[in-house]
Amino acid sequence: MKNLLVAQSGGPTAAINATLAGVIAGAYTSGKVDKVLGAVNGIQGVFAENFIDLREKVSGAEQLDLLAQTPAAALGSCRFKLKDLEKDQEQFEEIVRIFRKHEISYFIYIGGNDSMDTVDKLSAYCAGKGIDDIFVVGAPKTIDNDLMGTDHCPGFGSAAKYIAATFSEIERDCHVYNTKAVTIVEVMGRNAGWLTAASALARGNGEPGPALIYLCETAFDTERFLSDVRAKLEEQDAVVVAISEGIRNKDGAYISEEVQSGAVDNFGHSYISGSGKVLENLVREKIGCKVRSIELNLMQRCAGHIASAVDIQESRMLGMTACQCALEGRNAVMAAIIRKSDEPYEVEFASVPVSEVSNREKKVPAEWVNEAGNDVTEELLSYLRPLIRGENAVRYENGIPKHLVLY
Amino acid sequence: MKNLLVAQSGGPTAAINATLAGVIAGAYTSGKVDKVLGAVNGIQGVFAENFIDLREKVSGAEQLDLLAQTPAAALGSCRFKLKDLEKDQEQFEEIVRIFRKHEISYFIYIGGNDSMDTVDKLSAYCAGKGIDDIFVVGAPKTIDNDLMGTDHCPGFGSAAKYIAATFSEIERDCHVYNTKAVTIVEVMGRNAGWLTAASALARGNGEPGPALIYLCETAFDTERFLSDVRAKLEEQDAVVVAISEGIRNKDGAYISEEVQSGAVDNFGHSYISGSGKVLENLVREKIGCKVRSIELNLMQRCAGHIASAVDIQESRMLGMTACQCALEGRNAVMAAIIRKSDEPYEVEFASVPVSEVSNREKKVPAEWVNEAGNDVTEELLSYLRPLIRGENAVRYENGIPKHLVLY
Repeated sequence: MKNLLVAQSGGPTAAINATLAGVIAGAYTSGKVDKVLGAVNGIQGVFAENFIDLREKVSGAEQLDLLAQTPAAALGSCRFKLKDLEKDQEQFEEIVRIFRKHEISYFIYIGGNDSMDTVDKLSAYCAGKGIDDIFVVGAPKTIDNDLMGTDHCPGFGSAAKYIAATFSEIERDCHVYNTKAVTIVEVMGRNAGWLTAASALARGNGEPGPALIYLCETAFDTERFLSDVRAKLEEQDAVVVAISEGIRNKDGAYISEEVQSGAVDNFGHSYISGSGKVLENLVREKIGCKVRSIELNLMQRCAGHIASAVDIQESRMLGMTACQCALEGRNAVMAAIIRKSDEPYEVEFASVPVSEVSNREKKVPAEWVNEAGNDVTEELLSYLRPLIRGENAVRYENGIPKHLVLY
Repeated sequence: MKNLLVAQSGGPTAAINATLAGVIAGAYTSGKVDKVLGAVNGIQGVFAENFIDLREKVSGAEQLDLLAQTPAAALGSCRFKLKDLEKDQEQFEEIVRIFRKHEISYFIYIGGNDSMDTVDKLSAYCAGKGIDDIFVVGAPKTIDNDLMGTDHCPGFGSAAKYIAATFSEIERDCHVYNTKAVTIVEVMGRNAGWLTAASALARGNGEPGPALIYLCETAFDTERFLSDVRAKLEEQDAVVVAISEGIRNKDGAYISEEVQSGAVDNFGHSYISGSGKVLENLVREKIGCKVRSIELNLMQRCAGHIASAVDIQESRMLGMTACQCALEGRNAVMAAIIRKSDEPYEVEFASVPVSEVSNREKKVPAEWVNEAGNDVTEELLSYLRPLIRGENAVRYENGIPKHLVLY
C-alpha cells in the first residue's frame, strides 16, 4: 500500500484549498496512490495522527471545485517549526515512524517559508538516513508573495484582486463629499510590500486609485509623508493612502514604535496601534483635516468570493505538479511557477530545490518603487496585472458562496 | 421646457447609483422630460447650480448598467439639512428661483431620513405657496435599513450580502488554528442592528457563522457578554462575535464610553476606540485568550463587486417609480417597497407620504432577538434571506469591476 498525505500550514489564503484540490486530483487520477490522507492542523496533525480520509470527504469534480473555492486552510493550519536536524532528531524519527505505520510514501506540504523549512529538514533527514521510499515535496502558498524560487505565490493574486477592487470602491466612496479628507488604508505585509503595491491596480480602468502608496521596503519618513499628503490635499478633496503594515523608518524601527503613543488604558496596558492608526493620529495632529484609517484585516486574505481565476487555476496546477513530483520519486523540491511572458501572459510549472526557498524572503525590488518613494513603477504594474485577471466562477447558495468544510 | 433634476445625499451605498440609473431610465423613456440634470453634492449642488447634463454622460443601456454597478454616489453627496420652514423661508425661495431659472419641474432626491426631510420641507413649501408645477419626490437609500414606510431599503441587501459572505469567510479563516481565540467583528449601525443581524446569514448553507450576535437595540451587559464568550470557548476554539458599532448599556451609554480607556496619546489627545476595540481589550483583560477585533468599515457599504441582484434590481425599480410619481404630478411622496410574501419572495412598488418617513427610524423589533439577547430569531432570518439573493452580473475590466465616474 502506498498512501499520500497532504497538509497545510501558515496563514490562510483564498487559494490554498485550490492547491489542496490539485494535490487530491493528482493523486486520484494517478492510479498510483491508495489512501489519500489529510493531516489536520499541519505537521501537528501528523504527530497527533489526526488524519482525514479524503476519498470519503472529497469525491468527484463537483466537490473538488467546491473545495477550490473555499477560502482558508480546509485541513486547518499550524505555526510549528521542526527542531534543527543537528540538535534533535527525535521529531524526525517520530514522523517517519508514523509514516511507516500509515504506509505513507508521499507527503505534500502546502505553505510558505516556514513550511518549506519543514519540507527541507524532513527530506534532508530521510536522505541522511538512506530512506528511499518516502518522498517529501512542497507546494507554495502565501498572500505575501515573498517566496523565492517561484515567479509569484498562490493566494497572492486573489488577495491582490480583492485589494485592487476594494481600493477602487473605497476611492469611489471617499470621493462623494466635497471636504478635505484623508483615508489611510493599511494592507498586510510586515517585510514585503507586494500586496500594498497591488492597490495601484485600482487605477487599472483609468479611474483614480490611491493617491499615495508606501511600501515597507522603502524607509518611511513621517515628515515626507506629511508633506506628500499636504501636496495631494492641495490638488484634490479626498486623499486615499495605501501603506504596508510593516512600514519602518530609516533606522528600521516600525512607525508604530517610532510614533508610539505611550498611551495606557485604565488597566495599565499599553495600547497597541497599527501603522494606519498611528498615521491617522499624526495627520489629525499635524494637518488637522478629517482623517480615518482602515485595516483590510483578515478580509484581504480570505475573500474567496472575489478570487482571481488565474490564481485559482495556477494554484490547482501547482498542487498537481507537487503531487506529480512526489509520485515521480522526487524529494526536497517545491512546485513553482516560471513566467515566460507578461503580455500575453504565459507561465510554465516546474519545481525548484526547496533549500533555495526555505527561510528566505523575496521583497519588492527598489527599482520598482518611484523616486519619491510614494508610488510604484510601470514595471511593477506589468508584473502584477496578469495575476488578478479573470473572475473565478464561484458557486453561490442562499446568497453566499458555498464552502466545503472538512472537519 | 420641462427638465428633471436628480441628486443624491447621505452615506454612500452599493445601490444608490442603481436608483439613479432607474430615475434616468424613467426620464429617458417617458418622452415627457427635456433635460435630465444631476446636481453634484446633493442639495448643496442645487444652491451652487452645479449641474451635470446626464444625457451627455449617460446614454444607452450599457452606460446605465455600468452606472448601476458603480458603488457610492456618482453625483456626490452631502450632509445638509434645510432650515425649518416656519423660521426661515429664504433657502426655499432660492431653490425655487433656481428651479425656475433651469426650467426644472421635477426633482428627485435619493437618500435616507435626512434627505426625506428635505423632500418633506421643500414640497410643503411649494404646496404652501400654491406652486403647482414643481414636483418633489424622494427615493429611499440606506445600508442601515432604518427607513419607515418601506419594507426594506435599497443598499441594505448588498451590504447584508457582503456581511454574510464576509462572516462566512472570516469564520473559515479563524477555524484553521486549534487555539482558543476570539474575533470581534464590528458592523455599521448606531441605532439599528439590521446589518449586524445579517451576519447570521453566514450560516445559510449549514456551515458555522458567528457564535454570538449583539444588536444595538438590546441593552449590552459586559458581564453577560464575557460569560457568553466564556461558555462558547468551552465548546469551540474559534469564537467569532458580531456586534453593532452602536451597542449601549442599559442606561443608554455607548460601550465605548462605559468601558472608556481614559487613554491619551503623547499629544495629550484622547484615544477614540470603536466598540470592537473596546471589547477586544476587555476580553484580553478578563479572559486572557488570543483576541482581535475587525471593523468592516467602508467596505461593507461600497462593496459593489458582491452586490445583491435583488437589491440592484429593486433599487432601479424604485428610481423608476420615483420618476414616474413626479411625472404623474405627485408631490411629497417617497417610492417604497411593499412585501407581499417571503417565500416565494414577492414585492410591489408603491409610494408613501414622505412625512411618514422623514426624521424617523425603524429598528429591529425586540421579538426578533433571542431571549438571551445574543442572537437573532428565525423570523428575522425569514425577513432577511430574500434580500441577499442573486449575484449582480458585474462587468469586470483588467481584473476589477468597471465603474462609471461622472465628475
